This record gives sequence, C-alpha cells and structure tokens, in this order.
Amino acid sequence: MHLNLFTECTPSPSFEGLWRHPQEPDPAVYRSLGHWIALAARLEEACFDALFFADVHGVYDVYEGSWQPAVREAVQIPSIDPVLVIPALAAATRHLGFAVTYSTTYHPPYLCARTFSTLDHLTGGRIGWNVVTSYLRSAEANGIGEFLAHDVRYDRADEYLAAVRALWEDSWSDRAVVADVAGGRYADPALVREAGHEGKWFRVRGPHQCEPSPQRTPVLYQAGASGRGMAFAARHAEVVFLTAADRKRCAEQVAELRRLVREAGRDPASLKVLLGIPVIVAPTAEEAAAKVELFTSLHSAEGRLAKWCGWTGVDLGGYADDTPIESIRVEGTRTPLDLIRRTSPDRDWTVGDVRRTLTLPHRPMRGGRFMLAGTPEEVAAHMTAWIEQTGIDGFNLIPCPASAGAVDICDLLVPQLQRQGLFRRRYDPGEPTLRERYFGAGHRDHGGRP
Amino acid sequence: MHLNLFTECTPSPSFEGLWRHPQEPDPAVYRSLGHWIALAARLEEACFDALFFADVHGVYDVYEGSWQPAVREAVQIPSIDPVLVIPALAAATRHLGFAVTYSTTYHPPYLCARTFSTLDHLTGGRIGWNVVTSYLRSAEANGIGEFLAHDVRYDRADEYLAAVRALWEDSWSDRAVVADVAGGRYADPALVREAGHEGKWFRVRGPHQCEPSPQRTPVLYQAGASGRGMAFAARHAEVVFLTAADRKRCAEQVAELRRLVREAGRDPASLKVLLGIPVIVAPTAEEAAAKVELFTSLHSAEGRLAKWCGWTGVDLGGYADDTPIESIRVEGTRTPLDLIRRTSPDRDWTVGDVRRTLTLPHRPMRGGRFMLAGTPEEVAAHMTAWIEQTGIDGFNLIPCPASAGAVDICDLLVPQLQRQGLFRRRYDPGEPTLRERYFGAGHRDHGGRP
Repeated sequence: MHLNLFTECTPSPSFEGLWRHPQEPDPAVYRSLGHWIALAARLEEACFDALFFADVHGVYDVYEGSWQPAVREAVQIPSIDPVLVIPALAAATRHLGFAVTYSTTYHPPYLCARTFSTLDHLTGGRIGWNVVTSYLRSAEANGIGEFLAHDVRYDRADEYLAAVRALWEDSWSDRAVVADVAGGRYADPALVREAGHEGKWFRVRGPHQCEPSPQRTPVLYQAGASGRGMAFAARHAEVVFLTAADRKRCAEQVAELRRLVREAGRDPASLKVLLGIPVIVAPTAEEAAAKVELFTSLHSAEGRLAKWCGWTGVDLGGYADDTPIESIRVEGTRTPLDLIRRTSPDRDWTVGDVRRTLTLPHRPMRGGRFMLAGTPEEVAAHMTAWIEQTGIDGFNLIPCPASAGAVDICDLLVPQLQRQGLFRRRYDPGEPTLRERYFGAGHRDHGGRP
Repeated sequence: MHLNLFTECTPSPSFEGLWRHPQEPDPAVYRSLGHWIALAARLEEACFDALFFADVHGVYDVYEGSWQPAVREAVQIPSIDPVLVIPALAAATRHLGFAVTYSTTYHPPYLCARTFSTLDHLTGGRIGWNVVTSYLRSAEANGIGEFLAHDVRYDRADEYLAAVRALWEDSWSDRAVVADVAGGRYADPALVREAGHEGKWFRVRGPHQCEPSPQRTPVLYQAGASGRGMAFAARHAEVVFLTAADRKRCAEQVAELRRLVREAGRDPASLKVLLGIPVIVAPTAEEAAAKVELFTSLHSAEGRLAKWCGWTGVDLGGYADDTPIESIRVEGTRTPLDLIRRTSPDRDWTVGDVRRTLTLPHRPMRGGRFMLAGTPEEVAAHMTAWIEQTGIDGFNLIPCPASAGAVDICDLLVPQLQRQGLFRRRYDPGEPTLRERYFGAGHRDHGGRP
C-alpha cells in the first residue's frame, strides 16, 4: 500500500482548535525549518511514499462576512508557503517524496513549470504537484486572479495542464544538453523547441527555462470530487486523493474514476487512489478512546463553521434555520449539498441541521468510518478492509493532532503494517523517483511515456 | 566593509563560456542542492554578509531574433529558480544572508509578500529581496505579464512596494498572535487589519496571510542605474548594487544616490552601496595574470552579444556598422547608449564599434578598474581605494569563474582583508538578522521604523 502524510504549514493543520492539544509542540513550529526537517526525517525512517502539503491562497472570510473568525481560530491563517519548505526537506532526506498544493488559478503556467522543474531537480525526482483550482473568493480581493465558476476553473485548468506539459515534456530533448567543451556548446538548440501553446486562456511560447529534470512532469495529484473534477483527474492525474462517507460509496467513486480514466484513453492502473482519512492510534483501546475524546473536545466549532462556509462560499448565518440546504446555490461556489452528501448522505438537511451538526462537539465516527481510531492492530485491520472493499491503493493519513499524531503513526501504526507485510520496510533503490515508487522502476515520465 | 557574493543558478553564472573553465565543476552542479549548500557553508565560514542570486524570466532572444544563441551558450538558460534554493541553504547555515532577485512585473504583490515572509521566517530574518522590474520582452510571449516601458515599470514598482509593505508592515501587530489556550484564540483579530491597498495597478485587500517575520520587510536591494531606477532606489532601497566605469564616476553615483535618499526624506546612512565587480585573485601576480588570461580566452563573444542584445532590446545584427549607437532607441527598452556610457564613456560609439568590442576577446581592465585582479594584497589595496575614493560601503563580488573563483575569494582574499582589519572575523551574535548586519543591532524593520 502507498502512504502519504497530510499536513499544512499553519499552526493547526486540518483541525481547528487542535493547536491547543497538550501533546502538540508550540504552534509557532509551523514556521520553523527544524520542525519540518524532523518530521520529514521521521517519515523517511517509516518509509512513507510522500509528505503531502495542502495550502490555500486568501482567507476564509465567508462566515459572518468576516475574516476575523478565521484569524482568531487559525483557520489556515497564518500560514507559510509550503513550496518553500520542501527544498530544505529534500536536503535532509534521500527517498521521501513531497506533494505540494499549487493553484492553476493564481500562477502563470510558465512560472509553474519552472517552479516544479526546479523542485524536481533539487529533490532528485521526488516531487508531486497537487493540482488545485482554488475555492476562496477572497483571493480575488487580493488581486491574484479572477474568481471563476467551479467548472470554468477546471476548463481553464485543462488548458493549463496542456501548456505546462508542453514545457516539461516537449521543449527540451533528453539529448539537448551536450556540454561540448571543444565545440563551445552547452546545449544543442536543434534539440530544444518552443512550446508554442496558444489557447483560450494562455499563450506560452517557450522554450522552457529549465533543462529536463528526473521526472520532467511532477507526479500529478488531484483531489477534485465533483463530476468536473473527476473528469479532470481522469485526463491528467496519477494520484487521486479522495474522501468518502463509507466504503460502499468509496468503492463506487474508485470504480467511476477508473472508468473515466479508461474512457480518457489511459490505463486504469496508471491512476493510484489514496483515501484521505483522519487517524488516531494508541497502544490500547482505552488509550485510543481517551485520545478520541480529547481530540473531540478540542475541535473548535467556530473554526469548523468558518472553514465550512469558506469551502462552500455560503455564509450559514445568512439563512433561516428551516431553509433546505439543497436550495442554496451561490454562483461560482460548490453546492453545499454536494459536500453534505459526501459525508452524510442519508437525510434531507436544513440550514439549521448543518449549523447544529457543525457546532455540536464533533463526534468522529470510528471503526474505520470517517476516522481510523484504535490500537495499531485495529487500525491496520480497518485499512486492510478499506483496501479490499474499495479498490483504493493507499492512504493520505491525516494525523490527529498534526504533530503528536504523526509520531504515533510512525511509532505505532507503521511498524504494525510492516509486521503484517502490508507496507515496505525499506525503499527500493531501483525506484529513486516518486513516480517510480508509485508505478515501478523505469516509470520516470508521466503516463510512462518514453 | 560589507561583502556579498554574486551568483546565478545557471551553468555559467555571469560570464558566458566560463562553464568550460578547467577548474570549474561539472556545470550540472547548478541544479544540485549539495553544490549550493557547500558554497553557502564556505561563505559563512568567511563571514560574508550575503549570497546574492541574480535571475531572469524569459529568454535572451533579441540577438539574431532567436533564442538559439542563448541556449547554445547557456546565457541564463537553462536555469532554476533561486528562490527555491535558499531554504536548503538556510537550514545549513546560521548567519549568512541571502538576497534574491524577484520581479515586480511577473508576480502579484499578495503572493510576493507571502513568498518573502515565508523566506524571512525560514531563514530567521536573513532574507533580502533584489527588486527588479525585468527587462526581457520574451517574458511577455510566455504569458507572464505585459512588457511595459522602462519608466512605467518603475512607476508600477513604486505602487507595488506600497502594497507589499502594507502587508508586511501594517497588517499584523507584533502582539496579534496571542496563542491563548484558555480563551481559544490563536490570534487577536482586533490587532490584525486589512492592507486596503487600492491603486492604479493593484488592489490588495489583505489581511496578510503570514504573521510578522523577524524582519517583516526583507532587506530591499536594488540595482537600477537609470535616473528612474535611482529615484526608485532613493525611496525604497536599503542596499544598492551598482557598477561603475571608474572611481570618479562611482563617487558621483554614490553622492547622487545619497542626495536623492535625503531628498526622499530618508537618512542617507540608511542606504548601503555595494559595488558589483568581477574578481580574480591568486597567490602571486604571475598566477593572477595567467588566470586573467585564461578567463579572457574562455569568455564567449557570441554569448556576450546575445546577453547584451537582450539587455538593451536591440539586435545589433539589424543595424549598419556606421549607425551611431545613440540614434538607436527601441520602445520600452534601455538605450544602448546608456549602457555603453556607463562602462566606456569617452567616445562616440557606432554599432560597428560596439559589435567589435563585444566580439573581440574581452580584455578586462585590471588594476581595480572593471575587474579586481591580482594578489590578495593588491586586490585588498584596490578595494580600500574604491571605498575611500567613492563612499561605497562594500562589494558584491563576482567570482571569475563562478565556483573556483569563489573558493579563491574565500581562501585568499577574505583572510587578507581580515588580517588588515578590513572585514569581520566572526558574526556579531547581537545582529542575527541581515538588516542588523547592515545597520546594527536593533534595526530589524525597514528604515529602522519601530
């Protein structure tokens, strides 16, 4: 199985309020290299495939029409740019991969291509790109780009991928750099060509500013769960990171994704699917239950509301309690109903239901549903069941809380998986790149293309 | 005196053809972290103020109307993004500063502010920003922004600085992050405010996505030598990096800069001026002369032409030899005459003169003019003379060639400067940030503002 660890460069990754957890370090460590280097080294010891960094641009300012709740609760603000953390982690590790969120909406393709070629060179081929189109409208108020409707963002992202892949895959031949001292030629211009991309959204002439890196195209991650997002993933993604209400729906999503990949003319095996899922693991069932209890008690209701409203673009404060949630649509945003359906599909929700659910103490469903919680043996058994019953290829584990939870995963869960032969005990030296770790030795380029 | 070392993340930094120098490492090291980490560690041993990274976006495609000469000669292509190299160097050092080129033309201010706040956090306050407006028109063909006329770029950059400084300096109070566990508040929103920038070019609402970093605003470097560039520097820059034809003109430039700084309402001492100058140093005068000879013989004429034409926007191939150089103006570019005047002001140049000068073997003027070349004692004496006769505060040393030359500077020149009491032998622990290294303990914020 493949394992990523999910994190964010912010004081309280993934869960609002958890920066207060008594086992967590000073929340200021999120902006210190030493913290990230220690985490990366520990994950490499545990043979993780990759450390996955989520990120946003802008601020969660939908709830109460204000960014103040987000600032108060540290809802992904303050945060630092995870792209800039990775080079220091690359220097401190040899095998661990890094997947980083980077938005197609707020950076031109030409600069994106150079950023990832640089990261691929510096990591020796260990970089992945979590392609996102960005959902926070507040980014627009900060002048970094026009906020477009959801599906239009994906149309634009399709063209974006064509432009960056032209730079990565077609601009410099593998043989272009000749370093010919006698002839005085560093590169042979006949083996370098323009990208020549001219589309509806982008014009990128090229040539690419970088020579070919070990993987050329970073491993393409994607997490879009909408129909349009899945169509995008089917065309481009090599690793999809999904969340699911239960195993049955997860199995349906995986099957649908693989069907779409086949329809797009790709081998369904060229896509790995990782389930993003929170984890609490402890030596005994009692300790695990106590950890779940403590985690639950620290999860901030107001922080969750601020994040949920930012995700959906809907200020729950703006609607009467008896408003059916499915009646709410805000142009350019995700339908709240879509999000609700994914996690709790079995009832008709009103605004009041949602608000109460979000603001009541959060009760994570255990036993392998929503959250993996228990002893190492129990969690390993749940993971096995998920893989067997859904067709996923592994997990993007969300530690609860971020730092202490990651230590538990490395100290308790991974050794259990290794004892059961479910996870590698060492990296395969024949698979030096992140893509090869997913798809086997020799698969250096996207889609295995030569 | 203050010392920076100048470099670029490309196979042949500063001088075309020098990647072929027999003492240089494999040119591929420019894309390896190990190479940069070793250089940074050596510079820190030598107590340098900072490692300075130049950079460009786009490609030199003016000469012969083609990017092929630039690719052949490795004229800043291929290159990787130096911003991404710095975090790994920060992890490997404790005192060395890093100044990096970043364009106001091709990144939105909101993202620029986050990039440098992140770097300032990760380096513990050791970051400088070399503010450039970018001169390569080819960037436009790659869709990263509109190519504007020289002075308009600086007008826009003035507004850009106002926007990023509002995010860095005014958005988060020093006391905003409270990490109040009992009250459940990570930050106090009453102590965070919007930047509220609305101008001709930019709209940046804020708040800033990052909490205050050690320096808040990175140390602002600037290298513009035009009248408009100097006016910009007088308003914002803390370190100006200039080149000069001789000491007399250098002294005039320094005096003019300080006058402009005073006119802008700033203390003239709040600006440090570094002379950018190539250096060749060797144990004996004979060895130094041989090194100059070898350096000269390897400098590529075609590469120089490609770079010069890209700088000026003028394809020398397009004009008859007897065309007076001062008659040539291409909209939006620098006047070639301005560039010529700065380095060889004493004649009326024709296109043929320039082409011949550029394509003949380059004869660096020695004896402290254009190039510092000689024994450590000689070079130290020239440096002293420059400082005494011009009012500069130090140097941005350009090693010839990039790697072997940097070793010579650290092994031979710096110890000589230290023996003479001209340069520090250790870092002052009371000056942990780059700004404090330039302006003294306690000067953490731009312009010494509280």
